[in-house]
Amino acid sequence: MSENTKSSVGIGLIGSGFMGRCHANAFASVGGLFDLPVRPVRAVLADATEELATQQAAALGFDRGTADWQALVEDDAVGIVAITAPNVLHERMALAAIAAGKTVYCEKPLSTTAASALRMTEAAEAAGVVTSVGFNFLRNPMVRLAREIIESGEIGEVTGFRGRHAENYMCDPNAPHSFRTDPQGGGALADIGSHIISMARHLLGPITEVSADCKTIYPTRPIAPGSDEHKPVVVDDMTHALVQFESGVSGSLEANWAATGRTMDLSFEVTGSKGAVTFTQEHMNELRLCTGSGARAGFTTIEAGPSHPPYGQFCPAPGHHLGFNDLKVIEVAQLLEAHATGGSCDPDFREALEVQKTVEAMQEASQTRSWVTLPR
Amino acid sequence: MSENTKSSVGIGLIGSGFMGRCHANAFASVGGLFDLPVRPVRAVLADATEELATQQAAALGFDRGTADWQALVEDDAVGIVAITAPNVLHERMALAAIAAGKTVYCEKPLSTTAASALRMTEAAEAAGVVTSVGFNFLRNPMVRLAREIIESGEIGEVTGFRGRHAENYMCDPNAPHSFRTDPQGGGALADIGSHIISMARHLLGPITEVSADCKTIYPTRPIAPGSDEHKPVVVDDMTHALVQFESGVSGSLEANWAATGRTMDLSFEVTGSKGAVTFTQEHMNELRLCTGSGARAGFTTIEAGPSHPPYGQFCPAPGHHLGFNDLKVIEVAQLLEAHATGGSCDPDFREALEVQKTVEAMQEASQTRSWVTLPR
Amino acid sequence: MSENTKSSVGIGLIGSGFMGRCHANAFASVGGLFDLPVRPVRAVLADATEELATQQAAALGFDRGTADWQALVEDDAVGIVAITAPNVLHERMALAAIAAGKTVYCEKPLSTTAASALRMTEAAEAAGVVTSVGFNFLRNPMVRLAREIIESGEIGEVTGFRGRHAENYMCDPNAPHSFRTDPQGGGALADIGSHIISMARHLLGPITEVSADCKTIYPTRPIAPGSDEHKPVVVDDMTHALVQFESGVSGSLEANWAATGRTMDLSFEVTGSKGAVTFTQEHMNELRLCTGSGARAGFTTIEAGPSHPPYGQFCPAPGHHLGFNDLKVIEVAQLLEAHATGGSCDPDFREALEVQKTVEAMQEASQTRSWVTLPR
Amino acid sequence: MSENTKSSVGIGLIGSGFMGRCHANAFASVGGLFDLPVRPVRAVLADATEELATQQAAALGFDRGTADWQALVEDDAVGIVAITAPNVLHERMALAAIAAGKTVYCEKPLSTTAASALRMTEAAEAAGVVTSVGFNFLRNPMVRLAREIIESGEIGEVTGFRGRHAENYMCDPNAPHSFRTDPQGGGALADIGSHIISMARHLLGPITEVSADCKTIYPTRPIAPGSDEHKPVVVDDMTHALVQFESGVSGSLEANWAATGRTMDLSFEVTGSKGAVTFTQEHMNELRLCTGSGARAGFTTIEAGPSHPPYGQFCPAPGHHLGFNDLKVIEVAQLLEAHATGGSCDPDFREALEVQKTVEAMQEASQTRSWVTLPR
Repeated sequence: MSENTKSSVGIGLIGSGFMGRCHANAFASVGGLFDLPVRPVRAVLADATEELATQQAAALGFDRGTADWQALVEDDAVGIVAITAPNVLHERMALAAIAAGKTVYCEKPLSTTAASALRMTEAAEAAGVVTSVGFNFLRNPMVRLAREIIESGEIGEVTGFRGRHAENYMCDPNAPHSFRTDPQGGGALADIGSHIISMARHLLGPITEVSADCKTIYPTRPIAPGSDEHKPVVVDDMTHALVQFESGVSGSLEANWAATGRTMDLSFEVTGSKGAVTFTQEHMNELRLCTGSGARAGFTTIEAGPSHPPYGQFCPAPGHHLGFNDLKVIEVAQLLEAHATGGSCDPDFREALEVQKTVEAMQEASQTRSWVTLPR
Repeated sequence: MSENTKSSVGIGLIGSGFMGRCHANAFASVGGLFDLPVRPVRAVLADATEELATQQAAALGFDRGTADWQALVEDDAVGIVAITAPNVLHERMALAAIAAGKTVYCEKPLSTTAASALRMTEAAEAAGVVTSVGFNFLRNPMVRLAREIIESGEIGEVTGFRGRHAENYMCDPNAPHSFRTDPQGGGALADIGSHIISMARHLLGPITEVSADCKTIYPTRPIAPGSDEHKPVVVDDMTHALVQFESGVSGSLEANWAATGRTMDLSFEVTGSKGAVTFTQEHMNELRLCTGSGARAGFTTIEAGPSHPPYGQFCPAPGHHLGFNDLKVIEVAQLLEAHATGGSCDPDFREALEVQKTVEAMQEASQTRSWVTLPR
Repeated sequence: MSENTKSSVGIGLIGSGFMGRCHANAFASVGGLFDLPVRPVRAVLADATEELATQQAAALGFDRGTADWQALVEDDAVGIVAITAPNVLHERMALAAIAAGKTVYCEKPLSTTAASALRMTEAAEAAGVVTSVGFNFLRNPMVRLAREIIESGEIGEVTGFRGRHAENYMCDPNAPHSFRTDPQGGGALADIGSHIISMARHLLGPITEVSADCKTIYPTRPIAPGSDEHKPVVVDDMTHALVQFESGVSGSLEANWAATGRTMDLSFEVTGSKGAVTFTQEHMNELRLCTGSGARAGFTTIEAGPSHPPYGQFCPAPGHHLGFNDLKVIEVAQLLEAHATGGSCDPDFREALEVQKTVEAMQEASQTRSWVTLPR
Repeated sequence: MSENTKSSVGIGLIGSGFMGRCHANAFASVGGLFDLPVRPVRAVLADATEELATQQAAALGFDRGTADWQALVEDDAVGIVAITAPNVLHERMALAAIAAGKTVYCEKPLSTTAASALRMTEAAEAAGVVTSVGFNFLRNPMVRLAREIIESGEIGEVTGFRGRHAENYMCDPNAPHSFRTDPQGGGALADIGSHIISMARHLLGPITEVSADCKTIYPTRPIAPGSDEHKPVVVDDMTHALVQFESGVSGSLEANWAATGRTMDLSFEVTGSKGAVTFTQEHMNELRLCTGSGARAGFTTIEAGPSHPPYGQFCPAPGHHLGFNDLKVIEVAQLLEAHATGGSCDPDFREALEVQKTVEAMQEASQTRSWVTLPR
């Protein structure tokens, strides 16, 4: 589409921390990389104070800053509201944006509880607005390839799943309390387990039964960095779970934020009757695929390249790796496409709600020491 | 010790299949590699027929063959009875050898049920004979190093475990029934899950609680290779389990003989508060260790060498890999040492019994869909 | 620095192919990621036709397009001229930009011959303008870490070098002629060998003597994609070289564009008396470092993170990989810093000239079948 | 063949150091693993003193020991003479064994100079005796697979070679002088470069032209372990070479015994027009193969298994790794086969002579700073 005849859409970004900057950068880059039906304009940025918002707006290329997120949501210059504020605020912000008829792009987790996520989902569906949730790891061309391989039957009938998201950011017993350890919606399972749950669902469909062991490794943590005062931790540092998919496949899954030595082991192995596919975010530009048998069989390391869309948007030659921030660009491209065409995003609020329900089913299974069936 | 003043011990080997040959080769090699207090003499080999036994005795360097394993067990020329016959025969053979006062070296699993394994263990302990069970993967210098690292506190307090034994030898739906699929003692969990359970216990001690999902992937299999007649399969092809160790550590574990693409993924990751250690039998001469933090931290790939006993018995320089058969040589060296000195082997019958109990607890947990506590 | 008080600089981009888009994207993103003393404004884009230029200007966020690169170079709105046009045009464009007093950012190779590169370098130095050349792989935080490790003496005295840049884009005998196979400045050595030469110099300093074997694997290629008409190839498909550094270190180096199976094996191993460091662009977010000895020694895989500047500009947590396009953002950040402060870039024209001279010394060594000493 | 009707052959082993024990172990094991036309009997072992020889004979299972290697060579009980004595003695011992009509199995390098190796080769060929040289790394089933893949054309026309043998055993500047640094026949190139040269020839045939840089990294070394007295080193610690094969293929090769961090990087990459194959002894049970193109292409990691002869002699299932000592068993099996049938071994003395000539051509090329053509 010619750039000159393209309509534009104003972006209203709430929050300018790590994820806020990541969104801003994606909206700045996406137009030069993807041929989209609409041009994003960085319109308004909201943050805690007027000063901070104004400064960040300038730094991140937004037209103006504001301390009033409600005004941002209702601003006529804004067509898409991107929410990167603390999880506990997601519901209020999203409901306001939905009420204003805006497309809503919310960071994960969708909210702090499944009940809250359900309210958000129902409001969005009733209003008919486009929604998207930031499970960025699903955007990887290698993950898209994995799904294609699974769905096409290249590895035969799927027989098993093994998944994990392990990082080390809370492995220090003196890592202090934060929003991450908030009894409401916190813990390793909610924080990063949600990534591997969303991945599992993305690849193999709904999870219907779970057994789980949610473990608090360090019973207390300092109330603040360096503080001598400690407070009990009530959320999990590590969860191991058994999962049963609707399709009949069974497997296991781990979430661990105290995994010393691991910075991003978001990994899976999907086994089939005729092959298998493995992936780890530690080598995010590779997918390992095994098919066939005999004296030449084994896992082939497939490197990302132009034959794995949408890699080609970033580079016309293979071997030029995508990075984490590029995943966010892909996410934003899908969002803009859906906004312009009235299409849908994957994952949207509904899908993120299902992830949240799975998290809570695992927490319940751990507390009751029994298998829990997910309501359909 | 001077070779000339060494006493010798006669070996009586029952069975000359894959494992029998592996034992024979180990007894043939061990004397030239280890400086042992006793010299093994390949005395008698028993197999199904006189002809087969005689032929195999000649091929494997034994003084004579016999079709009568009872005679072998009671033969004065035999001091150590090595049992590599089908699992269902282990108990009878071991009890006879124990009754004859012989050292007993039995292949894993010790028997088909924990009840049978208990009878064997109690008989051996009552008779005071030396016993050893062939969990050969524990003999790897890299596994010994892992245990040392864990016990010394180099990785701090242990916080998590993740283990797996995955192979592909039953991934073909047309792989036929065999002793492996025998309702009595068969299945992936019993066959190879026992390896990762023994490894987990070896590294972290007793497992006290389990939740598990034992899954039969292919409901029927041919009754024989190439047969059109199919029969139901009642054992598991794949088991995923949650485990709780006596020490308080929790983790997960998988046994899978239908893991397409995997030929020997016997692997573990042990995480601690200050470090982590990972291993896979796929690269059996390496151990990956992470300790420390900061700009130079990460997993170090340690390659087996003379500073990792007993590697030095095989080669005075690093980089010259050990192979699978060498693990059996190490096992046999420990056995001969224990036989000569009246010491004990690890694992002995008692330890193998505990592995068997853990297998059965997982099977029960899967059937009852509940956590099962292991009796102490 | 506050965004509001920042001055801005206009970017004039010549060329909008792969590298042109890559530049445009970097200028679009850099402001939100780095805190720079100057704000880049995408001012003018020049390309072959007015129509193409206008369209690309819109797509890539430039104020306007033009078919007249000379006008762009002299435009008062332009402070930095970025050259991504064919190599054969680099000299004319750069000389014009230098004459206009502009900062010049030129893609590699600097020019088609060392003689031409020398003219460019001398003109730039005489005019005192800032220059930068796009050897983007040097910008990797992991490469910066490698240089730090080498310079700090962590691996002791350097004793050996082993380098390679291997890709597969010309491995098909029917890959046609293009600017890459132009007798003037073409060939694998000039095209990608220049990357590993620049890397070698970046890490270990000047190369003073070379022996080389420049090999044309496929003697003819089609004159155009799919054409039946073939024309002789006079440039190398693969070069192997021995190199001697000024420091006394010796080593080897390979350039290969017919390396079937390799998409980006830009790799090196630098060995020292006390350690070694290895890298491959295939895993561009990792550096492998070995120091120390004994039972825990081995190569440690260091993963990129905030403790490896400037990674932290892209993400505050480790494990979130950088991609190829991010390297260009780092390059552009250095350029803008140098432009604003009158500092210098590394590599600048002078350094790129030395790379070009090394390429030509290797070509001469291959033709004369003798070692060639580089003029200092 | 039935064991009972097999003839036997007596082994006379000279030397009982690392390699001597390795030979002894191979002769002890080979009969139980391979079905051979002849049974090896460990007859006589010679070493420096009567006492040492007698003790070692007992430890390694030989009938008797002797301090008189000449007597061993002429002993009627000995059919195969295995030479693991210092290199400088190889010629005398081999010539004596040849004169006695014995099969000769000599450790590598065949001798200290090509002139000496030529005398040995001509004597053996004149006498018509079977010869074998211990380039054990060629025996690996994965190397055999690589050669098969190359010869069958699976990777198309071969276009390039890249080889290396790097270890760290002399990386310490205080590693003392020994036979390895003897001006006559010593140095990294002769010691381990011979392995990668033999590998290159095994895979791609004769090398006809070389350019090389033989480098002494540490100009002096202690005359003995711990000594303060240093003596100049005149042999190379590291050699980089360019090679041209008779087939027209060109490539490079490195020998390095001061490669800190490397314990056994005997590695190669053979590139073809349609594929490539890579190997490193660091993962000696794997071969990486790339063929094909498109969205599923990449390097496949092939794990050793029964479909890669003679792996199946050691184990009927894949995933059970071979180790270094097993390579020696394969070597000895070929030797016994050739001895019994009057066949030939690969490599024999003639082939080892060609390796030695290539070493000397590289040394000459380095000294004369010019390309050297090998006499045919």
